[in-house]
Amino acid sequence: MVTALSCIDRPRQIAQTQCRVALVGFGTVGSAVARLLQARRDDHSLRLTHVCNRNIARKKVGWIASDVRWTDSIQQVLASDANVIVELIGGLEPAHQLVRRALQCGKAVVTANKQLIAHFGPDLLELARENHQYLGFGACVAGGVPVLSGLHDGLAGDRIVQIRGILNGTCNYILTRIEQAGVSFDDALREAQEAGFAEADSTDDIDGQDAAAKLAILARVGLKIEVSPQQVVRRSIRSLKPFDFEYAHELGCTVRQISTAKLKDGQAYLAVEPSLVSNDSSLARVVGSQNLVVSSGEFGGDTTFGGHGAGGDPTAVAVVSDLLQAARGRSRGVELPDHISAASCEFVTDQEAPHYLRFVVRDKPGIIAVLASVLASCDINLDAVLQKPGHTKSALPFVITLEPCRQKQLDNALARIAEFDFLAEAPVTMPILS
Amino acid sequence: MVTALSCIDRPRQIAQTQCRVALVGFGTVGSAVARLLQARRDDHSLRLTHVCNRNIARKKVGWIASDVRWTDSIQQVLASDANVIVELIGGLEPAHQLVRRALQCGKAVVTANKQLIAHFGPDLLELARENHQYLGFGACVAGGVPVLSGLHDGLAGDRIVQIRGILNGTCNYILTRIEQAGVSFDDALREAQEAGFAEADSTDDIDGQDAAAKLAILARVGLKIEVSPQQVVRRSIRSLKPFDFEYAHELGCTVRQISTAKLKDGQAYLAVEPSLVSNDSSLARVVGSQNLVVSSGEFGGDTTFGGHGAGGDPTAVAVVSDLLQAARGRSRGVELPDHISAASCEFVTDQEAPHYLRFVVRDKPGIIAVLASVLASCDINLDAVLQKPGHTKSALPFVITLEPCRQKQLDNALARIAEFDFLAEAPVTMPILS
Repeated sequence: MVTALSCIDRPRQIAQTQCRVALVGFGTVGSAVARLLQARRDDHSLRLTHVCNRNIARKKVGWIASDVRWTDSIQQVLASDANVIVELIGGLEPAHQLVRRALQCGKAVVTANKQLIAHFGPDLLELARENHQYLGFGACVAGGVPVLSGLHDGLAGDRIVQIRGILNGTCNYILTRIEQAGVSFDDALREAQEAGFAEADSTDDIDGQDAAAKLAILARVGLKIEVSPQQVVRRSIRSLKPFDFEYAHELGCTVRQISTAKLKDGQAYLAVEPSLVSNDSSLARVVGSQNLVVSSGEFGGDTTFGGHGAGGDPTAVAVVSDLLQAARGRSRGVELPDHISAASCEFVTDQEAPHYLRFVVRDKPGIIAVLASVLASCDINLDAVLQKPGHTKSALPFVITLEPCRQKQLDNALARIAEFDFLAEAPVTMPILS
Repeated sequence: MVTALSCIDRPRQIAQTQCRVALVGFGTVGSAVARLLQARRDDHSLRLTHVCNRNIARKKVGWIASDVRWTDSIQQVLASDANVIVELIGGLEPAHQLVRRALQCGKAVVTANKQLIAHFGPDLLELARENHQYLGFGACVAGGVPVLSGLHDGLAGDRIVQIRGILNGTCNYILTRIEQAGVSFDDALREAQEAGFAEADSTDDIDGQDAAAKLAILARVGLKIEVSPQQVVRRSIRSLKPFDFEYAHELGCTVRQISTAKLKDGQAYLAVEPSLVSNDSSLARVVGSQNLVVSSGEFGGDTTFGGHGAGGDPTAVAVVSDLLQAARGRSRGVELPDHISAASCEFVTDQEAPHYLRFVVRDKPGIIAVLASVLASCDINLDAVLQKPGHTKSALPFVITLEPCRQKQLDNALARIAEFDFLAEAPVTMPILS
């Protein structure tokens, strides 16, 4: 039992002394971290001492220094003289208990576990502070892109009002494949899986849970608000079709899974959703599995951070950078800022924006008139109607663009529209970002 | 005399206690820092106590808290209870002596003075360490873009092999104006001056000294090599003409002032020079006075940092971020890394690259044949010859693109070509970056 673990290593603060590093979890990222530590052997501040994984025997590799201890016992790691634990198990349990126990045993912790930090970050940082231990989590967001340290340190002097980005490489890979090759969503997903850019079960990526966890962490560090991943509005990219890109291009845009956290007048809006972004924007130019984050500050304006958001080596860079922070004796590292009480930050679930509204209908006369009348009754103004040729009348796609309206208005209108028998598919809505 | 200054405030380390901030230099950046501190009054970790400037009477403003002391005496500031000096005088002296004395008096220092750090950074950091004081200089490079902290902290775990970027907003403004409006260099410079994007004497910007200082600092922090600004190859953007952009566009490129620091096999190459960059690259998309830095790591690949590289408010964000670092009790802040001894890093002054070679000639038959023969005699292979219509025969521009060659070969060839009487202008060469 994790709760029964003992610690023989008494609490101590990691100062200029050597970090004795135990890797817990030896998959893609774990072995990349080990390789990076191996490549940095000349730097004596970091020394790999333990590798821990289930069924450790099948994990052993020959290229790791012979004095590293291989174990499948977390208890053995916690009881060892390792003074930094790198948690790469993923998921909430047993990772959560491991991290708590490690901190309580006086070990520093570095983790790449976004769900863990998104759900328990503030508590774990509090525990780390109580135990005078470093807790590093730079690898949780955007892999090798140092956006968390940028927001926390380099932009600390600004008042960040918005963070917007592409935080999920799997979705971006899928969307750019649909865009560039005109393949279906299912085919693009399959390609992404075959190319190693998507897991066998990619639900969390596609439906936005993965990006929502990252966005919650970014919002805490950048906007200085307390937020749980459940407060992030999430919409899936599953319903997108190649013709959505054709229509988006007609509008000078493309489609990306965009994560937005915005704070204005005490109101916070956080969402992960497919969105139209202008072809001129830096977000539109993010292709494949890359990540990009644009932070907007009241004083410094827009600052962008881009690079490899996933993969063994880039994530290992973030992990080892945190290990070096620990070694530099920074006892608190990337702290989460003080919470703003719930009262001073109200969460809203929609924002006013122009919208893209796509239908697939069984064509018959009068459909546009019917839709326009429903939208008008919900106080929504039409901007334009687009219909590209070359589709069958029994499943005819067309797009209506809307002047700025709130999602709630749109949901009301869509609830009424759902009753009409001419719909061949559920309509797709996306905000058009400025 | 600065050397006769006394310090009544004994050395002390800035811990969690309040930073009492003295601004020395109250121009654009200084007043933006004061405004930002004013806007952050709720954060009691930073308090503005002194503003120091020559002829201080004409600098006084009403919006600063009444208990702030206005002075034109650096000596008074050094002798005061301010425990952080923000050096915004610029230039080497008296800024250098001020910073030395402040550190010796036990005050932390934050500076936006790139020339000071480029020339004396390692010595000043040593002095800061000896005196257990923080020395922050995040504002020296790329204004509000937190690239120095990104390289030092967030990417610490990687081995950076190249840093490339657009570090001078004045040049970028001028080049994008020539590109977009087809104006001459002189007109674009005048426009930049009128728009506040260029100083009355912009020599340091245009000829590369400004970017060279920033590049030297980036190379120290990122590539971990000791380098002085004089070791940076510099070429001016002065000779560029609107038709250079036309020819660049023919090649799928545009022209930017690019700063490059590259480390390979113990050889370092640092240069600031106008260069052709592919229209697809993130560098080509930097318009106006924006900055962009792309760092390339052996493990993490390319990471980009972009934003406002100059201006009062963005630079003030960088200064205040450093002040917050000081307040957080980080006694050493952004350290320069240990030097690599000169023996292990040889500086080379040219790199092999395909080149753009532009002539303006008094046209007569046989010129291409003559040039081709000289280039061939220097072992340089031609790639293509481009000549756009619409120019007079007495000053006819055309371009030869060259297969990869070294600058030294090219200089040899150009020395011979200079003897021919058909040249109407000195040829312009630029590397074509991949």
